[in-house]
Amino acid sequence: MDFEIEHRDAGSRARAGVLRLAHGDVRTPAFVPLATKGVVKTLTADEVAALGFDMVLGNTFHLMLEPGPEVVADHGGLHGFMGWERPIVTDSGGFQVFSMGHGAVADEVKGRKTRGDGAGEREGAILAIEEEGVRFRSYVDGTDRFLSPEGSMAVQAALGSDLALAFDECTPFHVSRDYTAASTQRTHRWLRRCLDWHAERGPAGQVVYGIVQGGVHEDLRRASAQEVAASGCAGIAIGGSLGEDKAQMYEVVEWAVDELPQERPRHLLGIGDVDDLIRGVELGIETFDCAMPTRLARHGMALTPDPADRWRVNLLNGRFRDDRAPILDGCPCPTCRDGRSRAYLRHLLKQREPTGMRLLTLHNLTFVQAVMAALRGAIAEGRLAEVAFALRAGASPFAEATRPGRAEARAPAPPRR
Amino acid sequence: MDFEIEHRDAGSRARAGVLRLAHGDVRTPAFVPLATKGVVKTLTADEVAALGFDMVLGNTFHLMLEPGPEVVADHGGLHGFMGWERPIVTDSGGFQVFSMGHGAVADEVKGRKTRGDGAGEREGAILAIEEEGVRFRSYVDGTDRFLSPEGSMAVQAALGSDLALAFDECTPFHVSRDYTAASTQRTHRWLRRCLDWHAERGPAGQVVYGIVQGGVHEDLRRASAQEVAASGCAGIAIGGSLGEDKAQMYEVVEWAVDELPQERPRHLLGIGDVDDLIRGVELGIETFDCAMPTRLARHGMALTPDPADRWRVNLLNGRFRDDRAPILDGCPCPTCRDGRSRAYLRHLLKQREPTGMRLLTLHNLTFVQAVMAALRGAIAEGRLAEVAFALRAGASPFAEATRPGRAEARAPAPPRR
Repeated sequence: MDFEIEHRDAGSRARAGVLRLAHGDVRTPAFVPLATKGVVKTLTADEVAALGFDMVLGNTFHLMLEPGPEVVADHGGLHGFMGWERPIVTDSGGFQVFSMGHGAVADEVKGRKTRGDGAGEREGAILAIEEEGVRFRSYVDGTDRFLSPEGSMAVQAALGSDLALAFDECTPFHVSRDYTAASTQRTHRWLRRCLDWHAERGPAGQVVYGIVQGGVHEDLRRASAQEVAASGCAGIAIGGSLGEDKAQMYEVVEWAVDELPQERPRHLLGIGDVDDLIRGVELGIETFDCAMPTRLARHGMALTPDPADRWRVNLLNGRFRDDRAPILDGCPCPTCRDGRSRAYLRHLLKQREPTGMRLLTLHNLTFVQAVMAALRGAIAEGRLAEVAFALRAGASPFAEATRPGRAEARAPAPPRR
Repeated sequence: MDFEIEHRDAGSRARAGVLRLAHGDVRTPAFVPLATKGVVKTLTADEVAALGFDMVLGNTFHLMLEPGPEVVADHGGLHGFMGWERPIVTDSGGFQVFSMGHGAVADEVKGRKTRGDGAGEREGAILAIEEEGVRFRSYVDGTDRFLSPEGSMAVQAALGSDLALAFDECTPFHVSRDYTAASTQRTHRWLRRCLDWHAERGPAGQVVYGIVQGGVHEDLRRASAQEVAASGCAGIAIGGSLGEDKAQMYEVVEWAVDELPQERPRHLLGIGDVDDLIRGVELGIETFDCAMPTRLARHGMALTPDPADRWRVNLLNGRFRDDRAPILDGCPCPTCRDGRSRAYLRHLLKQREPTGMRLLTLHNLTFVQAVMAALRGAIAEGRLAEVAFALRAGASPFAEATRPGRAEARAPAPPRR
């Protein structure tokens, strides 16, 4: 993998660049929509590409259970299976396995509860965590299954993703420091095994990210970041419990980034609230994945530039019953552009019509994509502080004040391979 | 309304022509997809237009309950509400009200059980059928509601459809001849009231079809067809119980068509199986509406040229687990054209992913549209018998043998107004 940093922000750790992967380039910083089960919920691959996303995230845990890695491999991998021609990152399955194991406690994992797209995570059960790997009961058919670092890498090889994540234990917030320390050590040993397996048998063109754990303990986080960086993995993801509130999350991320080499790309797992994306970019994160925009859409929530309401509005609210305005004036998404009204969307959502969820998904992903484009452009133009301030103050990512200006317009588009 | 018959088949009653309505032309014979609640399930209006459909059907009963006619009217009618610019026909609400009233018995109404798109029909209750109209309990909020011929026309006026259907009682199969006779007489009186209301207050450009009832009794059907034709309505729909099997259904339709004036268009309510479309066209029907293609899609059934299996295949079947072929070779629908495999579709459908239902809906509607195009083209080319035979023998509607040939290709597209 080739990661090129094109611009650095003077006032923060933010960088703008491009990840060159086997199936093409990912312009960073970037948001990565979830295609957990081989589909971005309610959309086709063509539609996701039309929204401008460079990469999606598929999930090892779900896809290994259904339809099974061999079926996906027979289609030429996840790209052929789902018809997506751009880069794919695959989650390792660790988060899903361990959120079953830690049960309801997984909900305590601040921010992380939105990693993965929810289905099945409450139904399976973890049976044993051993040095070799994890035994669990399949939520699909109740059979005992085993997932190890090597097994996860083998599934990800079958899926043929551009970017594989190492198998880790995602430690929840409530466990003891001792548990977190021991678990983090095991995650490091598992990373070694992932890299060893991959060096010998990984598919050509696929790169591996290690995952930093360490909970909310500064020394453990810093040590984990150093250890993961030292493993020689192509990039570094930050996972696990990031604290009990946003302030602590930002602090934990900063500890990790402090220890990471500048030249390697960083991914922040399961984080995607608009304020977290802005702060994450300032902290030097390249890529983010999160169920937020797509899941909110299915629950009738549309993203809007309203920080006081967490950048969202509930279209099921009765006040939209006869509201003929689009979700957001000036939004270029297919839903707003075609003039579909809040009243129409509310009607479809109330009736649980799939088209309603889909129209909101298109809007929400367009919104998040615009936020990332604004931040990316702002870094390139040396005005990140100004644009971040405007977004935090409620500026629309489609407004003049936040849109990438001439500097970005002049820059040639990165070549696709 | 202007209805022009452009071609007549020499060997049957079939006609090909064009209905000129306020929002454009409908090339006949035509299938009309259901947009029961203001949306063709899983699709956007643009997608339905891209599939080539000239008209969709919205439902008075569902839309009067939610979001309410005044909300739709405030959007400039159903066209503005749902973003569909071509003609719309609205059902009168009679079928939905009466299928609640007759309870499970409605399922006996052969063929008709697929009229409407199912939601809510089992939850409400009819309270009284009176000469003035029908009292029923809303499935939405439990309140008592009243629907009369005038009320139905007023709602359809608010919806702003191009083509309104008169309010009728849909008599089920099991009732006595006396009940059917009395009910049919009331339906005729209701038609008179609908036409009187419409003459005085109906929106400009909207036309009204009367509905022939009479159950499976030849004299009642013939009398009803004569009575409805004599009312002066713009076109005639055939509704109610059409018998206990397809043979009887065709016979009942033929009795009605026998009595109908040649120059006025005919609609067959709630019928859409592929064999029924072929036979219906031969019997001189112009338009058909049915939940079949869209509902089957949501249950994992794809339309294929396989008469022995009722032109459908269940993609949830385990034999498709690793089937990399598209649903149907040569099918130009977005799903088949983009190469999505049966295995991928099966996976999405098993996971209840909305995208799976949508990809099948696109295929099924493309298939039905192709069947209608084949029949339309065949009438124009004087080879309906040959094409109908080929379709009934399992020819693909996308195959050379059934496709409209040079005659249709030479014919200019009907102008849109």
